[in-house]
Amino acid sequence: MRLSRYFLPTLKEAPSDAQIVSHQLMLRAGMIRQEAAGIYAWLPLGLKVLKKIEQIVREEMDRAGAVELLMPTLQLADLWRESGRYEAYGDEMLRITDRHKRDLLYGPTAEEVVTDIFRASVKSYKDLPLNLYNIQWKFRDERRPRFGVMRGREFLMKDAYSFDLDEAGARAAYNRMFIAYLNLFARMGLKAVPTRADTGPIGGDLSHEFIVLAETGESQIYCHKDLVEMGAPGPDVDWYGDLQPLVDARTSLYAAADEMHDAAAYDAIPEDKRLTARGIEVGHIFYFGEKYSAPMKAKVTGPDGVDTVVHMGSYGVGVSRLLGAIIEASHDAGGIIWPEAVAPFDVGVLNLRVGDAACDAACEKAVAALEAAGRDVLYDETDNRPGGKFATADLIGLPWQLIVGPKALAEGNVELKNRATGERTVVALDAAIAQLTAKAA
Amino acid sequence: MRLSRYFLPTLKEAPSDAQIVSHQLMLRAGMIRQEAAGIYAWLPLGLKVLKKIEQIVREEMDRAGAVELLMPTLQLADLWRESGRYEAYGDEMLRITDRHKRDLLYGPTAEEVVTDIFRASVKSYKDLPLNLYNIQWKFRDERRPRFGVMRGREFLMKDAYSFDLDEAGARAAYNRMFIAYLNLFARMGLKAVPTRADTGPIGGDLSHEFIVLAETGESQIYCHKDLVEMGAPGPDVDWYGDLQPLVDARTSLYAAADEMHDAAAYDAIPEDKRLTARGIEVGHIFYFGEKYSAPMKAKVTGPDGVDTVVHMGSYGVGVSRLLGAIIEASHDAGGIIWPEAVAPFDVGVLNLRVGDAACDAACEKAVAALEAAGRDVLYDETDNRPGGKFATADLIGLPWQLIVGPKALAEGNVELKNRATGERTVVALDAAIAQLTAKAA
Repeated sequence: MRLSRYFLPTLKEAPSDAQIVSHQLMLRAGMIRQEAAGIYAWLPLGLKVLKKIEQIVREEMDRAGAVELLMPTLQLADLWRESGRYEAYGDEMLRITDRHKRDLLYGPTAEEVVTDIFRASVKSYKDLPLNLYNIQWKFRDERRPRFGVMRGREFLMKDAYSFDLDEAGARAAYNRMFIAYLNLFARMGLKAVPTRADTGPIGGDLSHEFIVLAETGESQIYCHKDLVEMGAPGPDVDWYGDLQPLVDARTSLYAAADEMHDAAAYDAIPEDKRLTARGIEVGHIFYFGEKYSAPMKAKVTGPDGVDTVVHMGSYGVGVSRLLGAIIEASHDAGGIIWPEAVAPFDVGVLNLRVGDAACDAACEKAVAALEAAGRDVLYDETDNRPGGKFATADLIGLPWQLIVGPKALAEGNVELKNRATGERTVVALDAAIAQLTAKAA
Repeated sequence: MRLSRYFLPTLKEAPSDAQIVSHQLMLRAGMIRQEAAGIYAWLPLGLKVLKKIEQIVREEMDRAGAVELLMPTLQLADLWRESGRYEAYGDEMLRITDRHKRDLLYGPTAEEVVTDIFRASVKSYKDLPLNLYNIQWKFRDERRPRFGVMRGREFLMKDAYSFDLDEAGARAAYNRMFIAYLNLFARMGLKAVPTRADTGPIGGDLSHEFIVLAETGESQIYCHKDLVEMGAPGPDVDWYGDLQPLVDARTSLYAAADEMHDAAAYDAIPEDKRLTARGIEVGHIFYFGEKYSAPMKAKVTGPDGVDTVVHMGSYGVGVSRLLGAIIEASHDAGGIIWPEAVAPFDVGVLNLRVGDAACDAACEKAVAALEAAGRDVLYDETDNRPGGKFATADLIGLPWQLIVGPKALAEGNVELKNRATGERTVVALDAAIAQLTAKAA
């Protein structure tokens, strides 16, 4: 992509009402623009990152056997009356009346809709286990939306829902999601700690939050150090086998956010293994049994010929929130430091003297070679000054920056900068291209 | 994908309120489910096709120089008051009040939002031309939603908006979209005819509709036969050069839907070149000059240093509607006949005797080889009877069906069925695999 043809409205300074660094940087980097309180337009750079995160979530859900569908943003109020949540949900539910005076709402979550889809279609235990997920815009009418995409009103959520014949099946489904969550956050370059969680208004009796460590996090977490260092199991687990040992290895180590904190349990951890830090919730999984399936009569015929209410769980990832969380966890004074897997572009090519035949030719050659190798390239061929180009590349967090200026190029060289380490090395143009295309393979 | 782990709730019969064939087939094929009047959940099979169509639209927009962003579904009423459309839009606008009594609406289109984004960010003619598009859910509160996704209330639209310094620039932008539309519909296997169009409530003075020919179409179109046969220009045009001759070659031939029909002009076509047929609108492009930019004060500084109101156009594709249009244009008594570019799966592998070691091994081998070659495979390893498997594969429109039964397999053979032609050939398993993997390259 040529920067002169792109739409990247960066800002010199963030508006004063942006209180946290991710909000400030997303505005400054031209990733989002507020359209109303807690409602954002995703500008091209923000959308690119959002889509990369969404795709990682999708791939890890698919790998764990979940099947993607898409539920509408608007839902019938009557379904929520059936589950008993229509009145209970409170002011955060955006209630809507259509031209025929029917009660709709903008879905803040989708347990009712997915249970309705399930009960209409699935009749036999043979069709289980089933896990249906979608990645769709949700709306929660927060009283005081703030912190940019971290606590917006219209937000993108991945929500998965498992259906099983009994509690044992449901716990196996829960474990698959537990492992999938570890994997998907790891793929984004995040350390996400599973902590025991309150089940909140959704209810149920088994729940974990996944919390990303970041100095600027919203809550305090307390955990065993080994849990943070343990790493994700990776994709090659036996998804339909026994995942309990992998889950137990983690849940047996203490981890809780402040509202669930048990000081005595924490103090029982050897002192050199205690870790307390700030964190940001990015995922939440629940097993809630028959909470929705019973009132909504979602049943299947079991192997014994008897109709049984199914056991359900739900599994959320805050997809749009993750952008904020990643930036909170990974930035410096110059701007965002994207983990490579979610960077909007893999490489920036900075032409420091546009119009100079040698610089132009070297840049065009590099861009063509990198794009042919499947790398996503932002080519800065604007007439901005070098200082501005460096600042923009760092602000928007391009992981690799290939810097082409007339002086080095006279000797066949360019500079290659690594955004994360700040390291700049002078290398031959061809060597730089070879290094960056090799990474793509 | 193994069918036993998929979610494909096919129906023997469509509900009686489904009046047109695409609606009937989408319901029977388990692609969609109605959640409220004109509001559908996209079940996994429907979502797969929707995403393939969306991706073709995206690629052709990118190729034509448009830049993707994502505007929120909910918009501020105040922006529409600024353009003067808030009251004028009428009952199709879904008006919403949030907890703080602020007036929102579910966007039926996004001229106001995109103009607001533009005016906040773009100040100089040097940043033009600019074309911003998004693929986002829209809502129009149709009085009588019907025909499934063809006239739904919550629907997916690609809407692009061009910004130029003057009318000449805007016409060049219009031409890029005109050509891109020809290309994108052609990639989906559709014959889409550009017809002169009424500009309707969006306004302006230059507009074309793109109409897919289908016997069951909603309107009658009249056109010059050569226009239908002309084909799309393809991707290798000079996008920033003069596209006028390519556009003129088409617009000089008569084409109009009934509401714009000029019988005298049609009669002037040589009789053997006259074509009248039913059609379905799938795209609509407008040049509307300063209609929104003037009241909303979207200006740039021109080369002469003077601030100028920009000229705009907008360009819509009914992404979700396209599924209905494609099915209306391509089906038979057995079900849907997907053009390969948008088929939910490339190949179905039908195991006619699950549990038979040879059949299972042959199927597993085929599935592995096809998936390794990047083909999207649906493997029917359910315990349904052969007749049911054939019917499902045809109903959901799998373009190629690799049929593995014990009798043919005893001689090393399988059957390969082409859904579009109905042709079935007996070939060696390896030859079938080779043929299907070669297609992917």
